[in-house]
Amino acid sequence: MKMGELGRTVNLGVIGVGGRGWGQVEVLAQMKDVCIKVICDKHQDRVDNLIEYLHKENLVDYPIDGTLVDEEVLCRDDIEAVVIMSDWETHIDLAIRAMRHGKYVAMEVGGAASVNECWEMVRTAQQTGLDVMLLENCCYNNEEMALLNMVRAGVFGEIVHCKGGYQHDLRDEIGWGDENRHYRLHNFLNRNGELYPTHEMGPIAKYLDLNYGNRMVSLVSMASKAVGMNDYLRRERPDCAHANATFREGDIVTTMIKCANGETIVLTHDCTLPRPYSRGGHIQGTRGLWQEDNRRIYIEGEASEVIDGWLHVGVDDKEWMDKYKSDLWKEYEEFGLRGGHGGMDYLVFRGFIEALQQKTHFPIDVYDTAAWMAITALSEDSIANGSMPVAFPDFTDGKWMLRKDEAVGPYKLGK
Amino acid sequence: MKMGELGRTVNLGVIGVGGRGWGQVEVLAQMKDVCIKVICDKHQDRVDNLIEYLHKENLVDYPIDGTLVDEEVLCRDDIEAVVIMSDWETHIDLAIRAMRHGKYVAMEVGGAASVNECWEMVRTAQQTGLDVMLLENCCYNNEEMALLNMVRAGVFGEIVHCKGGYQHDLRDEIGWGDENRHYRLHNFLNRNGELYPTHEMGPIAKYLDLNYGNRMVSLVSMASKAVGMNDYLRRERPDCAHANATFREGDIVTTMIKCANGETIVLTHDCTLPRPYSRGGHIQGTRGLWQEDNRRIYIEGEASEVIDGWLHVGVDDKEWMDKYKSDLWKEYEEFGLRGGHGGMDYLVFRGFIEALQQKTHFPIDVYDTAAWMAITALSEDSIANGSMPVAFPDFTDGKWMLRKDEAVGPYKLGK
Repeated sequence: MKMGELGRTVNLGVIGVGGRGWGQVEVLAQMKDVCIKVICDKHQDRVDNLIEYLHKENLVDYPIDGTLVDEEVLCRDDIEAVVIMSDWETHIDLAIRAMRHGKYVAMEVGGAASVNECWEMVRTAQQTGLDVMLLENCCYNNEEMALLNMVRAGVFGEIVHCKGGYQHDLRDEIGWGDENRHYRLHNFLNRNGELYPTHEMGPIAKYLDLNYGNRMVSLVSMASKAVGMNDYLRRERPDCAHANATFREGDIVTTMIKCANGETIVLTHDCTLPRPYSRGGHIQGTRGLWQEDNRRIYIEGEASEVIDGWLHVGVDDKEWMDKYKSDLWKEYEEFGLRGGHGGMDYLVFRGFIEALQQKTHFPIDVYDTAAWMAITALSEDSIANGSMPVAFPDFTDGKWMLRKDEAVGPYKLGK
Repeated sequence: MKMGELGRTVNLGVIGVGGRGWGQVEVLAQMKDVCIKVICDKHQDRVDNLIEYLHKENLVDYPIDGTLVDEEVLCRDDIEAVVIMSDWETHIDLAIRAMRHGKYVAMEVGGAASVNECWEMVRTAQQTGLDVMLLENCCYNNEEMALLNMVRAGVFGEIVHCKGGYQHDLRDEIGWGDENRHYRLHNFLNRNGELYPTHEMGPIAKYLDLNYGNRMVSLVSMASKAVGMNDYLRRERPDCAHANATFREGDIVTTMIKCANGETIVLTHDCTLPRPYSRGGHIQGTRGLWQEDNRRIYIEGEASEVIDGWLHVGVDDKEWMDKYKSDLWKEYEEFGLRGGHGGMDYLVFRGFIEALQQKTHFPIDVYDTAAWMAITALSEDSIANGSMPVAFPDFTDGKWMLRKDEAVGPYKLGK
């Protein structure tokens, strides 16, 4: 389907319209083959204000219902899918209930609270014949897609090691917490693990063909002490309720993952110390290396400079990113970028909508969703047991070995 | 003691003069308060050639004996210390035997083969009243010393997390192996662990006051598959004996360490894939971050730029490195740099020689040496057991809690 071409109308219900959900509804509203039938949130003002805004700004020309009761969304007959953008810990339960009501699911990112809820989601998808797509926008980012092209073209040789992180100074947002009605605060106060793995893990999973000929087999995590939030709040908001609270979430949580094909992955969760934003991308193989933090690529015999006769360094990655730009992004740039986060929010939604229209399974499917989200629960288990390794569940029940040709959309293998 | 000032003459024996040892003897030879009495290697040609070279180039004006028998060095009455620069796996045994013969020890870097040999070295030092100094030159590098000043000045706030690596493409050196009489080949063929931790771990240990009020309490390692050497050798030297050998050392070995005071450390061993050299330094605290790979520092409210109104980035670290330059390096630059690796080889030897002259304990002492080297054996244990966490031995037997004021030389606390 050409970009901008309209398919049949997809009727949706939306649950959760806080900061993220609000912005995402604006992205959906501009799609002329999408109809948002109902918007749900636990706060009445959010529902009312968003519906009023959509009409006032002429972003939609159809009526939208509002409700405080998620079950009223899930049981509607006039929608085929639900978009879940509520608190992290409600995602999987809502996804399961939506499928039981016969609805497909798109779900904003976050981590799982237990491995069991991931299994339950997978089993429900299998039993209902439905599917869940994690809206991992970073899988659709220009650079990550160019890197996937490079990986598949063999630029880095055989891939051996990948790194990534969610390295985002969120002290202010976490600190506002309940006053801001944001779910991060209670997670950082109560949990200790890799709370938000998917922005880096999603693209890495695609580089390594996880669930499509490869899988994660074990995981181990370690957490540093937690001193960043208190240091910040005592200075910036000394009178707030949790300035001296005990935060359980270590400031830096590092997670190592081993894959069936022998690759290792290192993830870093880093949200409560001052730092520039970075997803800390790193792809390394037998022929070369790419690193996000210095925006350099180093390819044996190709992208390499020698300084002072001995110091081998890489080159700026820009030319390589352009050379390996994905077909999707070439088309997208011609079409015109839209939506949040540099355009990737729009693309990930189009991946979801077009899979529904074309009746393919999702480019990020329930097995991917379960595996990526399970990292959070597994990392909590590992840390709780003093950095014991934990076995990684195979949510495909062995089918990962035979699914090589099942990847769809931009992730189709051999493309 | 002012730099360049001569103390009493220190008589030394030297064991191991391959590539590294040869260069280090040249550094020692230029010190007018050092007398090299005897040089030992298992290869006669190395001994003969080096002694001949030292005299021919007028680097020394005194006689030097040569021997193939290490015991002949250790039992000499006319030396007070032995400098060990032989194969990795011989270091600790030689150190123990040297102390039993009443000699102080300086030892080139490498990792331990067992935790027990580390204990044996510590016990021998305690029984004999002698000491062992690991010649960790990176502890004396300009930048690492400036960073130590920043850490101690509180620039980064409370330190939470450090990273480092030995990331050095050594495929050519490893590949030559036996033909080159180098010890790396048999280690990479047979072992799987963090083989070479101290270049990054030494400076980190100083930042975190390890053994001086803090210590490492647990460690866990994970190794990737090993494909880099075969990929390289099959292309570059297809007829060599080990082109198709099974290398056990994973291309990337990642190690996570937890400290008593709650900090975490992540080490990366990366020697068999194409890449630019980097020790991957990273220091992170409640007020800021330094990263080696992009040469940037980010300090809340100070070293920080905002691009396009939202993207917070750090600044080039050069100005900060200059501002926090160590007193030792200020003096050294005035005196004139000498010796290998940008001058740090000379400084670490002066640390050793001057401690002998002044009868202080070593700036890097037997407890530091044991702890840093033990990482190798512990990481092998962890990997062999599927990335199980291993308890880190406390070689100080609890004295780390009370040793805060015992750091000497440039590492003296509160300086």
